Amino acid sequence: MKKVTSIKEMQKIIKGFQREGKSIGLIPTMGYLHEGHLTLAKKARSQNDIVVMSVFVNPLQFGENEDLATYPRNLERDMQLAAEVKVDYLFHPAAEEMFPQKQAITMHVEERTERLCGASRPGHFDGVVVVVSKLFNIIQPERAYFGKKDAQQLAVIDLLVKNLNFPIELIAVDTVRESDGLAKSSRNVFLTEIERKEAAVLFESLQAAEAIITEGEKNTARIIDVMKTMLHEKTSGEVDYIEVLSYPELQPSDEVNGVIIIALAVKFTKARLIDNIIITA
Amino acid sequence: MKKVTSIKEMQKIIKGFQREGKSIGLIPTMGYLHEGHLTLAKKARSQNDIVVMSVFVNPLQFGENEDLATYPRNLERDMQLAAEVKVDYLFHPAAEEMFPQKQAITMHVEERTERLCGASRPGHFDGVVVVVSKLFNIIQPERAYFGKKDAQQLAVIDLLVKNLNFPIELIAVDTVRESDGLAKSSRNVFLTEIERKEAAVLFESLQAAEAIITEGEKNTARIIDVMKTMLHEKTSGEVDYIEVLSYPELQPSDEVNGVIIIALAVKFTKARLIDNIIITA
Repeated sequence: MKKVTSIKEMQKIIKGFQREGKSIGLIPTMGYLHEGHLTLAKKARSQNDIVVMSVFVNPLQFGENEDLATYPRNLERDMQLAAEVKVDYLFHPAAEEMFPQKQAITMHVEERTERLCGASRPGHFDGVVVVVSKLFNIIQPERAYFGKKDAQQLAVIDLLVKNLNFPIELIAVDTVRESDGLAKSSRNVFLTEIERKEAAVLFESLQAAEAIITEGEKNTARIIDVMKTMLHEKTSGEVDYIEVLSYPELQPSDEVNGVIIIALAVKFTKARLIDNIIITA
Repeated sequence: MKKVTSIKEMQKIIKGFQREGKSIGLIPTMGYLHEGHLTLAKKARSQNDIVVMSVFVNPLQFGENEDLATYPRNLERDMQLAAEVKVDYLFHPAAEEMFPQKQAITMHVEERTERLCGASRPGHFDGVVVVVSKLFNIIQPERAYFGKKDAQQLAVIDLLVKNLNFPIELIAVDTVRESDGLAKSSRNVFLTEIERKEAAVLFESLQAAEAIITEGEKNTARIIDVMKTMLHEKTSGEVDYIEVLSYPELQPSDEVNGVIIIALAVKFTKARLIDNIIITA
């Protein structure tokens, strides 16, 4: 595996592969890799000639009071893990390489962002689509891999690809979980021991919601209530949101119907965790 | 020459050429072709395996009180002219093909737009960069051709390419002029006979400015004054702006120095004409 830090060098390498007619798969990440990322990489490996993983903590998508400075980083470990799943290129530009000056072309996502994380992280997805557009233009992948854990991000990238006609196939990969159901996340390392145990309740509450929907519950408010009670009783975390929305449009409705996402965000002492399931109601 | 109206078909054709390692040159136009466009096409023909010309009157870049509805169109003639200069593909999507729904990802250009046409056409360049990004993603050219007549547009596209890392070389082509100096423009057809004669003064005033700069004039205000007087005395048009700015940054300065653009916009009865020269002061 080769590490590339220069945009120009990366573009030159990509151009070479394009001339040879090679297909390229991209896994955009912010690093501190876990099994979720590696699952994306394995999938990419099975579908493309060349696999590029980007590791870039994008300053544009962090709000002023968010965890940009403390976001966990460990490039050496990332390189080792990426090499193990046979990534060909790890693209790791410095912030000044990606943003040598103030970004003069800004982007704004006008749909699918009013709810979930978009509501509590204003400007977050505007920053996401800029960096993803840059990565798409630098790597020019035939396929790009995103985890379903960041389901709203996936919905927004889907909108980006369609709205700007990127010739890229988005591959959505199921959330990878710990044995107790907790979704793998780079931020899990910030949980205290007791919070780590409580955090299993996030997925349990999603499963409880699915169970009552399967049994016939249609009322959105009642589904949310069941989850809220579980989270309050069994965790010390503060519920940021619990939402049941259409997917991928992310529109609310009093009654569940069709493809829906059940999603939540819970703030623990030093980590805000998100999780979701997408089901047909 | 083949006309293509479907984005999907165009992308499929492009993918085929990419697999064969063919280079693609793109000339984005709004149609009603004149010699300026054809000069761009000839240049593209000489530098690329495949030449694609897009003809699309982009609704996003017209303001509410602007001439979207009356912008001149003549596809049959365009096709004939494009074929004569050996364009391979004329890409002519309908507005509903390019914008099947409200554009949910919008873009904003934060630099190089406060002056010149950007000042009197708010949102114009925001609409330009969206459609150009779409065209870049659909056609994926190695080179894209723009005329220097729309010098601010060229400066903005330069910013777009750099800021979003499009792997595209911009080729700027000199303005093509009528024998009396009037810059070729699709909007020239809207001039009355007398206005058409007066319109030669636009370029004459630019040449007068260049002449006094060559003779040693450094003072921006005095240069503008000379031009304003010429335009007032010799045309019936209303001067929208006369500006002398750094290029491509488009910043004003009291004294001319380095690479500068001298640019003007004049409103006649039914056409607003622009022209400019870029020189080193």
